[in-house]
Amino acid sequence: MEHPENHTDYKGLTVNSGVSQPPVVNPYLKRRKKRSLPSAGELVEGILAGDITRLSRAVTLVESTAPDHQALAQEVIEKCLPHSGNSRRIGITGVPGAGKSTSIDVFGLHVLKSGGKLAVLAIDPSSERTKGSILGDKTRMERLSVHPNAFIRPSPSAGSLGGVARKTRETIVLCEAAGFNNIFVETVGVGQSETAVHSMVDFFLLLQLAGTGDELQGIKRGIMEMADGIVINKADGDNINRAQLAQAQFRSALHLFPPTASGWQPEVLTYSGYYELGIPEVWDMIDRYFAFVSENGYFEKRRLQQARYWMYETIDEQLRRHFYDNPAIAAALAEKEQRVLDNRQSSFTAARDILDIYFASGNR
Amino acid sequence: MEHPENHTDYKGLTVNSGVSQPPVVNPYLKRRKKRSLPSAGELVEGILAGDITRLSRAVTLVESTAPDHQALAQEVIEKCLPHSGNSRRIGITGVPGAGKSTSIDVFGLHVLKSGGKLAVLAIDPSSERTKGSILGDKTRMERLSVHPNAFIRPSPSAGSLGGVARKTRETIVLCEAAGFNNIFVETVGVGQSETAVHSMVDFFLLLQLAGTGDELQGIKRGIMEMADGIVINKADGDNINRAQLAQAQFRSALHLFPPTASGWQPEVLTYSGYYELGIPEVWDMIDRYFAFVSENGYFEKRRLQQARYWMYETIDEQLRRHFYDNPAIAAALAEKEQRVLDNRQSSFTAARDILDIYFASGNR
Repeated sequence: MEHPENHTDYKGLTVNSGVSQPPVVNPYLKRRKKRSLPSAGELVEGILAGDITRLSRAVTLVESTAPDHQALAQEVIEKCLPHSGNSRRIGITGVPGAGKSTSIDVFGLHVLKSGGKLAVLAIDPSSERTKGSILGDKTRMERLSVHPNAFIRPSPSAGSLGGVARKTRETIVLCEAAGFNNIFVETVGVGQSETAVHSMVDFFLLLQLAGTGDELQGIKRGIMEMADGIVINKADGDNINRAQLAQAQFRSALHLFPPTASGWQPEVLTYSGYYELGIPEVWDMIDRYFAFVSENGYFEKRRLQQARYWMYETIDEQLRRHFYDNPAIAAALAEKEQRVLDNRQSSFTAARDILDIYFASGNR
Repeated sequence: MEHPENHTDYKGLTVNSGVSQPPVVNPYLKRRKKRSLPSAGELVEGILAGDITRLSRAVTLVESTAPDHQALAQEVIEKCLPHSGNSRRIGITGVPGAGKSTSIDVFGLHVLKSGGKLAVLAIDPSSERTKGSILGDKTRMERLSVHPNAFIRPSPSAGSLGGVARKTRETIVLCEAAGFNNIFVETVGVGQSETAVHSMVDFFLLLQLAGTGDELQGIKRGIMEMADGIVINKADGDNINRAQLAQAQFRSALHLFPPTASGWQPEVLTYSGYYELGIPEVWDMIDRYFAFVSENGYFEKRRLQQARYWMYETIDEQLRRHFYDNPAIAAALAEKEQRVLDNRQSSFTAARDILDIYFASGNR
């Protein structure tokens, strides 16, 4: 029953966390008044050369709401586009408490052992509310956050989910152009953001805990069916049996689900992020997935579907934003909504009345 | 990866199936040129008196695309609104082959044994394509279709899912005003329509078959997690053991799901539509559900959420329709989409370019 009501504008707050920069201070923002914008060519050249400072600045522009920043960001993205696409995009979700940061730290180090580079992005539309939690996450990725081949970027600050997701998807393009061939996109597992993440990654990994069900409380219904792999954390010590039992239960549950669009049968594995057990097995599953979908053509097909999806999604988001940002609409909405809740007017005529205001106002 | 691209206009084809009318011929449509429209007062009076002919005519107006019909329909709905709401709205879905029509026939007769009236509506956005299948369904509800207290209405003819769903929801209002205290809304179980149905009913019933998984092929992922009850059909004869095994599997799978928003733990039962076994038990579950959600306040809360949801959903649908119906947009979309698929332009700038056309065209 959720509804896209987050039509507030972005707050314009951006946090830069390129690893080659000081951890908190963003010199670009600090000295914004004094510094002129770099040229698109300068940024693109830096990004293609793998310059993390330039990449970070470009991402900051992507996240900015200032029109000149946006225009520059779009120019940079457009120029990076032909150099993008060459990565494995992996969505990772799990409830708070599932050990997400530790797991990403360990998974990330494992991936980097075989060379290449890793960008860890996040989508958390609530980040404005829970300020700090995302940076907190970053500091918990202890080893990854100081790894020379890793780039960790917190969630764009709060705005509509559509807006936050769009920025993350644009950031993927920039990271890929900068040579990051592994992209993790992290979400919190409790909201609508998983659908957005699912529509921008190749593989969707769900972190779970063994347990009697209490641990599942926070996971939103429907997420399990998106997963290409479910991995049960904390399979160590006394907990091994419980984890294996959970594994058997999830496996049997997944068999009741209809096949995935990729034809891949989602797998269920156990591991321990803390003790670093079972990590190669998890990654072996992901390797097999990529081999499978490359072979059957689904990888390419899905990437195209996603590009198309995002075009339409952006259109829809902007149409909604333009509507809900109209001051006359905001005033009318509250009143009409109350009439609907009081059963004094149908949902449909209330909608029609508000649309009439919009289309008559001439200031769309 | 679906997208709301069904922005074609409604076809205007309507089929009237009020039980007290001849089965195929719709006198209203036939004699449209000769007959003047009834007044809203006339229709409302008839509906409130439980007159099926008037109800059918009002539903036909709801389904019409003619502006004068729509205006009249909205007036009737508005007047019926204070008399609506007093029903149990039950969504029923299942793949073709699950025995949906037979089950609805049997469930419906069971419900009518305790008195009251039953309206069976359907949502099938593909009905235009598979013309006849829905009327076929109706004739398969052999006993219900001739029952004096049942009103069976096929799906509004194809259009956008949003449009079809809206019409069905408006029809619910009219049926309730006409004294129908049980509403079944049927869907085919293979598309996006389940989400729409889920957002207009109180209880969502999923019909399944026992089996090795092949039977699940057609069910869309995510539907299982919407269900308030799963009932496994064809639990008879040789098939009883398989049905009971499936029941155990579904029960154990449901335990892995997070709790529903209502707090209700979805149940799994077996029955036989053909041999009419286990029907009272299925209905006992539904009775217990309604007692549960009335008690904890969820029933009322969800109804309000739904009313609110439909207001926003209608707004979004109309905004999209207005956009996609713009001839300049249709032309630009195809070209831009190709550029995006060729990786020559980002999804986001393509969207922006098309939005620029829209907002510049001035004929929104």
